[in-house]
Amino acid sequence: MGEPFTHHLRVRYAECDPQGVVFNSHYLAYFDTSLTELWRAAFGGYQSMIERGLDVMVLGAQLSFRSPAHFDELLALQIAVTRLGNTSIASSHRIIRDGELLVEGTMMHVVVDLAALKKTPIPNWMREQLAPWTVESS
Amino acid sequence: MGEPFTHHLRVRYAECDPQGVVFNSHYLAYFDTSLTELWRAAFGGYQSMIERGLDVMVLGAQLSFRSPAHFDELLALQIAVTRLGNTSIASSHRIIRDGELLVEGTMMHVVVDLAALKKTPIPNWMREQLAPWTVESS
Amino acid sequence: MGEPFTHHLRVRYAECDPQGVVFNSHYLAYFDTSLTELWRAAFGGYQSMIERGLDVMVLGAQLSFRSPAHFDELLALQIAVTRLGNTSIASSHRIIRDGELLVEGTMMHVVVDLAALKKTPIPNWMREQLAPWTVESS
Amino acid sequence: MGEPFTHHLRVRYAECDPQGVVFNSHYLAYFDTSLTELWRAAFGGYQSMIERGLDVMVLGAQLSFRSPAHFDELLALQIAVTRLGNTSIASSHRIIRDGELLVEGTMMHVVVDLAALKKTPIPNWMREQLAPWTVESS
Repeated sequence: MGEPFTHHLRVRYAECDPQGVVFNSHYLAYFDTSLTELWRAAFGGYQSMIERGLDVMVLGAQLSFRSPAHFDELLALQIAVTRLGNTSIASSHRIIRDGELLVEGTMMHVVVDLAALKKTPIPNWMREQLAPWTVESS
Repeated sequence: MGEPFTHHLRVRYAECDPQGVVFNSHYLAYFDTSLTELWRAAFGGYQSMIERGLDVMVLGAQLSFRSPAHFDELLALQIAVTRLGNTSIASSHRIIRDGELLVEGTMMHVVVDLAALKKTPIPNWMREQLAPWTVESS
Repeated sequence: MGEPFTHHLRVRYAECDPQGVVFNSHYLAYFDTSLTELWRAAFGGYQSMIERGLDVMVLGAQLSFRSPAHFDELLALQIAVTRLGNTSIASSHRIIRDGELLVEGTMMHVVVDLAALKKTPIPNWMREQLAPWTVESS
Repeated sequence: MGEPFTHHLRVRYAECDPQGVVFNSHYLAYFDTSLTELWRAAFGGYQSMIERGLDVMVLGAQLSFRSPAHFDELLALQIAVTRLGNTSIASSHRIIRDGELLVEGTMMHVVVDLAALKKTPIPNWMREQLAPWTVESS
């Protein structure tokens, strides 16, 4: 059983709105940085996946906003793989500030073959290298 | 029974990513422009709601990506109110290009009293003025 | 002698910062929408230029912020070509709200050959089709 | 004589455009993160300046794009104060990847009194605490 992968990110002024909080769509962009950092930990980087002829495309996302983040706050972003289907990757995301859960959500991606430009079964090397961060879905 | 409200938006170059398509988080920002335009149609604008002492905060969102939008495409954005709870507003969103559904999703907002800075029951004027775009939830 | 090309744009909530005004970098993105709309008026669209084997890359930009724009304001964006060099296009930009000049600036682009991926002389068709919006540099 | 302040930032996928490079307006947003980090080093953070009753507003910016940055690249961002006027702060900015200068520019800010909401002379504590990163203008 794996565990979530964590990286950190500091809120930029440009990401905050007139209510003084991070505008909602930026949290979805934050989730994407978690995927990038997990890819670095698992595969050596996004480019390494591209060089093996694969890419990922997003199918869907869900976000729950519990409490807002503000300018200059340091956030912990957690990502865990919750399910590896035949061609799809489900991930869960949590954004935490000083132990307080601010935002949680899920994303669904599909693996695509860059040459054929269509979805393709997840290869074994990808499953194995994601295993340390693959948890049972709650 | 109401019907969805529609406005239009053209995809900007800065919103497209190296895959040549609109980056996912921008669709959530697009949904927000639909809320703004619905507020204009229903209340005379967001500012009019603020002047009545109310604001809205987002609680959650869900998005399904069916087909990508590209640079310079003209998109039709539909929004409909699917449920008015005691304090919450549920909306459904669809992004359409030439009759093809590209993205659909939902958002949940809560109405807050600007003076007390906490959630407050939706007033009758808001319910009545949103009625033309309030549909039965599917 | 040509004259500036004008299009309009409404400020989005996500583009405003905790000071309640449009965050500075978005004005540079606004300038880019002016280029897109000028290209549509002059060439039938950006894609039409791409299909002729050309693209443009930005070399530099300069912005002066006189007065801030706010959420939901309708802005008039003016662009004029101020100089067509051998390979470079200089443009001037003005952002106006109800007759008041808010932001002005300049951009410099270079025309590149998409096949060779290097800068190329501006073809005559491009000079001619930009002529209605080419003004003497002030 | 001071020297530039440096911090680092990794390019996000959402910041790259269909040309596969960072879209130009994001470099201006990157410059703002340099200001934030310099403020942290000099004053203990932006919030510390706010608590002393001051804020800064941007008056102008200039950018020169020499070579593009790409997704997932780690960038070094340098900022130096080049002039402290009576009420204005001029800064120079450089974005560097592996020793190669990609983007350089300048920004001009004015110090404002938050109570009076108008520009105010730069206090001595601000001059002194910015001194380690104040260089002679080139």
